[in-house]
Amino acid sequence: MRPPPTLPTLMVTCLLAKVSVLRGFQPRRLSRAAALTTSAMTAEPLHGPDLMDHMLFRIQAVNQIPYNLGLIDFTVSGRPVGKVTPKVAERLASSGAAFELSTGTNTPTLTLSNAAGVTVEQRTKAVSAVMERLRDEGYIAGWRDELFKVAEQFDSPPLFMVERAAAPLLGVIEYGIHINGLVKEDDGSTRMWMARRSQSKSKFPGYLDHIVAGGQPAGLSLMENCIKECNEEAGLPSDITLQGIQPAGAISYECYVGDNKPPGEGFLSRCVLFCFDLWLPQDFVPVANDGEVESFFKWNTEDLARSMDPNFDDPIKPNCYPVIIDYLLRSGAISPDSPKYLQILKSLRSGPCC
Amino acid sequence: MRPPPTLPTLMVTCLLAKVSVLRGFQPRRLSRAAALTTSAMTAEPLHGPDLMDHMLFRIQAVNQIPYNLGLIDFTVSGRPVGKVTPKVAERLASSGAAFELSTGTNTPTLTLSNAAGVTVEQRTKAVSAVMERLRDEGYIAGWRDELFKVAEQFDSPPLFMVERAAAPLLGVIEYGIHINGLVKEDDGSTRMWMARRSQSKSKFPGYLDHIVAGGQPAGLSLMENCIKECNEEAGLPSDITLQGIQPAGAISYECYVGDNKPPGEGFLSRCVLFCFDLWLPQDFVPVANDGEVESFFKWNTEDLARSMDPNFDDPIKPNCYPVIIDYLLRSGAISPDSPKYLQILKSLRSGPCC
Repeated sequence: MRPPPTLPTLMVTCLLAKVSVLRGFQPRRLSRAAALTTSAMTAEPLHGPDLMDHMLFRIQAVNQIPYNLGLIDFTVSGRPVGKVTPKVAERLASSGAAFELSTGTNTPTLTLSNAAGVTVEQRTKAVSAVMERLRDEGYIAGWRDELFKVAEQFDSPPLFMVERAAAPLLGVIEYGIHINGLVKEDDGSTRMWMARRSQSKSKFPGYLDHIVAGGQPAGLSLMENCIKECNEEAGLPSDITLQGIQPAGAISYECYVGDNKPPGEGFLSRCVLFCFDLWLPQDFVPVANDGEVESFFKWNTEDLARSMDPNFDDPIKPNCYPVIIDYLLRSGAISPDSPKYLQILKSLRSGPCC
Repeated sequence: MRPPPTLPTLMVTCLLAKVSVLRGFQPRRLSRAAALTTSAMTAEPLHGPDLMDHMLFRIQAVNQIPYNLGLIDFTVSGRPVGKVTPKVAERLASSGAAFELSTGTNTPTLTLSNAAGVTVEQRTKAVSAVMERLRDEGYIAGWRDELFKVAEQFDSPPLFMVERAAAPLLGVIEYGIHINGLVKEDDGSTRMWMARRSQSKSKFPGYLDHIVAGGQPAGLSLMENCIKECNEEAGLPSDITLQGIQPAGAISYECYVGDNKPPGEGFLSRCVLFCFDLWLPQDFVPVANDGEVESFFKWNTEDLARSMDPNFDDPIKPNCYPVIIDYLLRSGAISPDSPKYLQILKSLRSGPCC
């Protein structure tokens, strides 16, 4: 277990978002590189010219798609709902009757076959048969027994449902919620609750994480899911969650995940994460009810900025970074006079849908 | 002069963002249409199913580009920096030596000619000569004597400078600042200061507007411009501005403006507006120092939502709407369970750069 990092006393002082704004107002004296987080007690920026590049690095880390994948569309009733590699398309098409690969045209397409049926129930069952076979063959890991809705858009009617662990294989858009757990301290600064993921997690064990985050299952509204996940992951009673939660938009990304897979057999992780700020009482201490979190602690804006560094030795789970960067941009912590500000803003929504 | 609208007492009560979140948490009972702003004293949504469509209407109103314009690129040293109609390109190319129209290839392009020089100063002078001629011919109205930087990106070095009123003619990206003037009231609700534009303004006389908004001139940082404009447009001392201002990202739009022009001789308004929240003391009352504002008054979230209606009879200046909608989305006023939430989020940045 990596301990939460400690900071030199000097660096902890007075990290107010206002300071960065002030720096933006004095660009000639402090240079355009002073993007954020200069200590009120020092004239020198603590992060200097690198912060904006570090933030871009973190966003680009979840937006990696090799140019030569030859991705093909996955369509249902002529509507594109996913993207797959040719090898994955072949594997799906040869694993049962649900999928078929049309190669007769110049643009090959993976489609849901007529044999999969026309109702949501029929299609879900047909897809499930294929996915269970692939799970049994060891092709799909981390089965959750949790259904994701596959649809043209987030608020469109479902075309079919698919096991959460199998959704990435189809390159369909997955939706999740990420919650910035925030505390306004007596000195006016804001701190964010961080969670350290359990060492027993299959993905990113021991990494830092949002206080609460999770996939969006079918059958719950986003707000219902927030209440549920806040309770499960941080022991938050629903009244505290309802009192403090503020929806704040969404970020998106699209990334090829080829780890531990033969070449061309990885999948596209195409995600939209709905972002929330949850303002918590100063005396509230989160408690993990589901064993997925090892410990909780609070970080200030400075800590968050420092963790953007590619060489930072106790990183946050990669897909949390764009949510945190979005929060920093929304909350006034970053001067818009900083270099690459618009590029960062744009890249926060590099994926589909938003 | 249209007076600020008054509201039935019932509708004024308790318009807390929290209520909309609660509605998001009860989608089945209240329907997915209850996007925002239900009165805490009534079970029925005040706006109902139409608010999200109204917001989309307001965003789309500043993102209108007819499909058949045949737009061509305007490039400098091979770098695309603008978009013009063929007729405007011809007019520019025939109005002096600065511009030339290459029609030898399949993709005609308007370029800055070699005769315009290679330095920023030379190019600025050459472009200025053309623009002053077009002004004298009545082709460019509303001359400001204010220089805009033309560059590949916001933070790239300038390629040349151009009079603000002439920038849209080249379809270059214009940058501006829009400031949401916010007050936290004793009851926990937030109100936004609105300005009524003077009847003597050349554009949108008598329309509602942000408390402070303006173009981004060359030679000032964004934060310096905020301080300056806040002082000029609302009588804000710099200490109050610095104390309360929070940068909050940007929105963008791209719109063909053909008013009072022969067909095909309009221009593209391509804008990036940097958004700021300015938290003001309850007892502060803005004063217009520059005669551009007739009066100021405060609106609550409910008023803002109501003004989205295409039939609302006292509208806000069109390009303020996406900034206000961005604020509503960022600040928790809109449940993400509302229909078209992601579509609205995406369309807020329909233009270039962000």
